Amino acid sequence: MTHRGSSGNDLADSFVGTEKRRSLFEQAVRTLPISVCSTFFDKDGKIAPATFRETETVLENADQGRITAAFPRTVAKNRFVVLEGVPSLSGVSISGRRVGVLFSGGPAPGGHNVLAGLKAVLGKGNTLLGIRGGPKGLLNGRVVEVTSRDVRDILNTGGFNFLGTDRTKIKSPQQFEQVRETVLQNRMDGLVIVGGDDSNTNAAFIAEYFETTGVKCNVVGIPKTIDGDLAVGNLLPIPFGFDTATKIYSELVGNLTQDAASAVKYWHFVKLMGRTASKITLEVALQTKPAVALISEEIAEKNISLENIVDSIVQVITERRLRGLNYGVVLVPEGLIEFIPEMRDLIRELNAVLAEYEKDIRDLPTLRNKLEYIYPLLTPQSAQLMASLPDEIEEMLILDRDDHGNVKVSQIETEKLLIEKIRYKISEIKRHTDRYFGEGEGKFAATPEQIESIRRITFAAQSHFLGYEGRSAKPTTFDASFAFALGMTAGSLVLADKTGYMAAVTDFHKGGRVLAIPLPGLITVEMRKGKEEFVIEKSLVKLSSPSFQVYAANRDKWAREDYFSSPGPIQHWGPTSKQIPISVALDQDYPEFADFDLGKECRLDPDEI
Amino acid sequence: MTHRGSSGNDLADSFVGTEKRRSLFEQAVRTLPISVCSTFFDKDGKIAPATFRETETVLENADQGRITAAFPRTVAKNRFVVLEGVPSLSGVSISGRRVGVLFSGGPAPGGHNVLAGLKAVLGKGNTLLGIRGGPKGLLNGRVVEVTSRDVRDILNTGGFNFLGTDRTKIKSPQQFEQVRETVLQNRMDGLVIVGGDDSNTNAAFIAEYFETTGVKCNVVGIPKTIDGDLAVGNLLPIPFGFDTATKIYSELVGNLTQDAASAVKYWHFVKLMGRTASKITLEVALQTKPAVALISEEIAEKNISLENIVDSIVQVITERRLRGLNYGVVLVPEGLIEFIPEMRDLIRELNAVLAEYEKDIRDLPTLRNKLEYIYPLLTPQSAQLMASLPDEIEEMLILDRDDHGNVKVSQIETEKLLIEKIRYKISEIKRHTDRYFGEGEGKFAATPEQIESIRRITFAAQSHFLGYEGRSAKPTTFDASFAFALGMTAGSLVLADKTGYMAAVTDFHKGGRVLAIPLPGLITVEMRKGKEEFVIEKSLVKLSSPSFQVYAANRDKWAREDYFSSPGPIQHWGPTSKQIPISVALDQDYPEFADFDLGKECRLDPDEI
Repeated sequence: MTHRGSSGNDLADSFVGTEKRRSLFEQAVRTLPISVCSTFFDKDGKIAPATFRETETVLENADQGRITAAFPRTVAKNRFVVLEGVPSLSGVSISGRRVGVLFSGGPAPGGHNVLAGLKAVLGKGNTLLGIRGGPKGLLNGRVVEVTSRDVRDILNTGGFNFLGTDRTKIKSPQQFEQVRETVLQNRMDGLVIVGGDDSNTNAAFIAEYFETTGVKCNVVGIPKTIDGDLAVGNLLPIPFGFDTATKIYSELVGNLTQDAASAVKYWHFVKLMGRTASKITLEVALQTKPAVALISEEIAEKNISLENIVDSIVQVITERRLRGLNYGVVLVPEGLIEFIPEMRDLIRELNAVLAEYEKDIRDLPTLRNKLEYIYPLLTPQSAQLMASLPDEIEEMLILDRDDHGNVKVSQIETEKLLIEKIRYKISEIKRHTDRYFGEGEGKFAATPEQIESIRRITFAAQSHFLGYEGRSAKPTTFDASFAFALGMTAGSLVLADKTGYMAAVTDFHKGGRVLAIPLPGLITVEMRKGKEEFVIEKSLVKLSSPSFQVYAANRDKWAREDYFSSPGPIQHWGPTSKQIPISVALDQDYPEFADFDLGKECRLDPDEI
Repeated sequence: MTHRGSSGNDLADSFVGTEKRRSLFEQAVRTLPISVCSTFFDKDGKIAPATFRETETVLENADQGRITAAFPRTVAKNRFVVLEGVPSLSGVSISGRRVGVLFSGGPAPGGHNVLAGLKAVLGKGNTLLGIRGGPKGLLNGRVVEVTSRDVRDILNTGGFNFLGTDRTKIKSPQQFEQVRETVLQNRMDGLVIVGGDDSNTNAAFIAEYFETTGVKCNVVGIPKTIDGDLAVGNLLPIPFGFDTATKIYSELVGNLTQDAASAVKYWHFVKLMGRTASKITLEVALQTKPAVALISEEIAEKNISLENIVDSIVQVITERRLRGLNYGVVLVPEGLIEFIPEMRDLIRELNAVLAEYEKDIRDLPTLRNKLEYIYPLLTPQSAQLMASLPDEIEEMLILDRDDHGNVKVSQIETEKLLIEKIRYKISEIKRHTDRYFGEGEGKFAATPEQIESIRRITFAAQSHFLGYEGRSAKPTTFDASFAFALGMTAGSLVLADKTGYMAAVTDFHKGGRVLAIPLPGLITVEMRKGKEEFVIEKSLVKLSSPSFQVYAANRDKWAREDYFSSPGPIQHWGPTSKQIPISVALDQDYPEFADFDLGKECRLDPDEI
C-alpha cells in the first residue's frame, strides 16, 4: 500500500488515500464475492432476472374482507398467492425499463447491496434511478441515475448514505399525487421501496393507487429492519440488516461479559435497540449467554410486574454474589417498558390525564406540584407505581411529550430505571438481611458468612445503549448476499410486471429460495384511537419458538454461573465469516448456523453490470 | 460443526457447545498463528529464552540524583542502560525456576497472550504461577499453577478473567512484607507485573525491596494500557492493548459517521476512554476522519477556553449546515475537562472550598442553597464559569466526591456538558442571526437563504461513551503477537537474572526488536499535595509529533466536508488483519501501517510448551 506520492512522504500519502470511505478494510471489502442464487442465472450461466410462478402457498388473512376492500385491484390481480422465482430460460432480455429505488426509515446494513442487486439484474439495458432522501425525495422528485461506477463504490459498504433516507409517511391524497408526478416525470416502470413494516404498507397502497389511476409502474417492497420484526414464517425468516446489527451488538456484549468477569465488580446493563420486538435481545443472549436477558414478549404474556422483574434480577445478583461472582451482564430490550403490564396501564392513564388537564398541569411551577395534582387522577395502582419511580423517570413521564401529546416512551431510560430500583432493593436487603435470609417461609437459606457477604455487596452498575453503531455497519457476508438477492428479486419482479409484492428469500441453508409475497396478504386492520389503521403486524418473539425455548432451557444455568461466550468481531474472511443468526437457524430448523448457502460465490465486476 | 449429541437435536447441541467461551469465533481464534521474533529461536530453530546485552542507549533522567537515592541497589546494578535481547546460542537450558505473574488495573486485550508467551519461554522445565485477583492476590498469596491446558484455553482470547485483576496499590511496609511472604512461600524466582504506569512504578519498588531484603526474585514489569500513555519513544512505541481498543472504537465511530451521513439529522458526541492522554482519540480520528476531534493536550497547551471550544464546534455545525450537512461526529477524550484551563482552576478552587466548608455546605438543604453559599467563595472567573454550567454538571461538581473529598472529575459527563452549551449557543445564534451573520467585524458572510437555513437548524445530539467494550476484546493479531513477545521478553529477563526492568518490544515493521528498559530510569519525582510522589510520566500526545501534525493538517477539510472512512470490525483473517495503529506508524516513521512484522508466524501447540 505504500507509494511515493506528491508530498514525498509514503505513509502520509497512503494515509490520505484512506479518506472518503477508503480505509484498507473498505477497499478490500468492496472486492469480496457475493453468493448468487441459481435462480438468477440464465442457461448460459450469466446473471439474469428471474421469472415467477405461483406456489401453492396462499396467505391467510383474518381481515381478508376489509383488505380486499382496501386493495381491490391488487388483490384481484395477485390474490393472496405467494410467487416463486425460477430461472429465466427464455433468452429474451427485457430492456429500456427505468426503475426507481428509495430507502425509508432507519439505516440497516446491506442497503447498498440492494442497489447493487437491482443494478445487476436490470443489466446494462435498463436504468436504475436512485431517489434521494427517502420518501420525501419521492415526493419532491429528487432522482439520480445509479451508475456502474456508483455500484463499484458502494458494494458491500454500510450505511444508507449513498441515497439517504427519511421517515416521511405518504398518506394524504396530495402526497399520492406527488408520487405519481415523480414517477411519470421520470418515466419509471418500477418503484422499489426498501423499508420496514410501515414502508411496506405504504408500498402496498402506492401499488393500489397506481393500479387505480392507470400508472404503469410496478411497486415492490424490500424488507429491511435491524429489529428483525418484519418476518414471515418460513417465507421470510428475517429482513436484511438483523444479522449484521445483532453480530455487532453481540461482539460488544461479549466483550462486556468478559470485562465484567475480569474486573469482577461491575454489573453492565445493556439496552438494545428494538422498539417493539425483543428479537435482537434474544439473538444477542443466545450469542453471549449473559446472566440475565429480559424478553418483553414473555413479560407481557406472563403478566410480570416491574417489582417481579426487579426481584428476579436482585435474586440473580445475590445468588451470584454468594458464589463469588460480584458482576454480570443484564440485557434490556429498548421497548421493554411498554410490555410491563402495569407500566402500560400507567402510561395509558397518564396520556389521558395529561390530555384532559394539559393547561392546568402546565401552569403548575414545579415537578412536585404537578405530581401532587396528577396522583389523585390516577388509579391507586398507577399512582403508587408512579410514586415508586425515580424522580428522573417521573419527570420524563410528565414533561417529555411527543407531537400527539403522548408520553415519549422511547425516551425513557429503562435501563437506568431498573438500576435505580435494583439499587434500592439491594440496600433494603442489606439493611434487613433477617427478613430475606434464614429459616422461614420465603426466606433464602444462608450461612452467617453468606449473609455477611450479602451485607458487603457493592452494586456498581454501568449502563449502555447499543443501537446506532449497528445500523450503518458494513453488512456481514450473509447480509451482503441476502440484500443483494432481495435487490435481484425486486428487480426481477418489476421486469416481470409484478406489482404489490414484497421481495423475499428463504432457505438460507440450501442455496436460497426466491419468493414474492403479495403485500395485502400481510396487512391487517388495527383500531388506533378509534380509527382503522392498516398495518403489517410486527413479528415478535414467540414463546413457543425453538429460539426462545432453547434460551429458556439454559438461562437459569447462565444466571448462576459464568457460561458466557464472546462471538467476536464480524469476520469477512476466514472460517467464521459465514454464520447466520442462531435464533434464525433454530426457528427455521436448519441443521447449523455456521455456514449459510445462498448460491454460487461470484466476484462481481461492476463494470459488467 | 453439526453432530448428533445427547438431545438428539444437532443444532441445539452444537449451540450448547458454544457456551463458556466456545463461540465459533473463539474456537477458531485459539488456533491462529503467533508471530515470534527471531530473538526467541535457538540455533535449532526452537523457541527459547533470549539472553541480554547492554545497548548504547542510556536513559536520561532529570531527577537522577533522587532516583538513585530511592533505588540505590537496582540503579547500582543496572544503571540506566537499556538492554537488548539476543538469541541464546549457549544450548544450556535453565530449569526449575518458578515465576509468578499478575494483572494489575483495568483489563487490556492481549493479557492472556502475555501468559502464553511466558509459558512458552519458560518451557516445560520451569513453572509459571498465576496470581489471582491482581496485587491483592499477591498480598494474600492466591497462587495457582498455569498449565499447558490453560494456555490452550486462553490463547488469543480477551479479558483478564483467567487470573482477574484489581487496583490495590502496594505502598505500606506491611504490604511489602506480605509480598515477600507470598514470594518466599511459593518459592518464586521471578515476579512479572502486567500493568500501567503505577503498576510498573510498583514493580520498580518491589525489585528494590527484594534487593534490599535479600529476596532472590527478579521483578519485571510489562507495559499494558489501552490508553496508550505508557510508551517510551522508539524503545516502546506503545503498550499492549492500545491497538485492539482503538480498532474497536474506530469500528464503532466509523459506523456512527456512516450512520450520521445516512440519517442526516444527528450529531453524535462520542466520549472515548482515556483519563489523561488523548492518544486514543487521536488514533480514532486518524482512522475515521470525523468532523471534530478534541485533543486535550492541544487545549491545555494553547490555553483554549471552554467557550472557545464550544464556539469552534458551533462554527463547524453551522458551516456544515450551510453545505447541507446537518450531521457529524465529535470525538471527546474522557479526560478533557481537566485540560481546559479555566475548568482546572474551578475544580482546584472547588476542592479547596469544599474541604474548608464541608460541614456548612452539607447542612444546606438544596443545590441552590449550596451554590449560593459557594459562589462568593470562588474567584469571579470561576464563579461565572460555574454559573454557566448546566444544573446537572453543577450538581456533580458539588455532590460527587471521591474518597479524598475531591471532585470526581472522571464522573463528569463532559460530552453532555458540551452538548448543552452548544445547544444554548445555537439557540442564541438562531435568535440573533443579525449579530452573527451579515456585514461587519467578526460576522460571517451569508445570504438570506443561508441565514434562513441557520434559523431552521435542529440540533439533534446523541451522546455515547466508548470504553469498557474495548478493554476485554480479543486481541488483534498485532496485540496477540506483541503481548506474546512481551511475555517472552519478561520470562527471558527473569531467567537471565535481570530485575527491575520493564519488557519492551519495538521495530514492529522489521521483525521486532526485544528490549529491557531499567524501570528507575523512567521514574520521576512529582510533588503532589506537598509530598514527593514517584511516578512514571504519562506519555501524552505531542503537538510536534507526526501523528498530531497529520491530523492538524487535515482536520479543517474533514470539518467542512465528509471525508470520513470506516475501518470496519477487527479482522483476524484476510488482507486487512495485520494493521497497526496509524499514529504509531507515523510517529515511528514506519513506511506503512498495513502489515506489521514481529517475526515468523508459528502455530503454537500448547502441549509442547
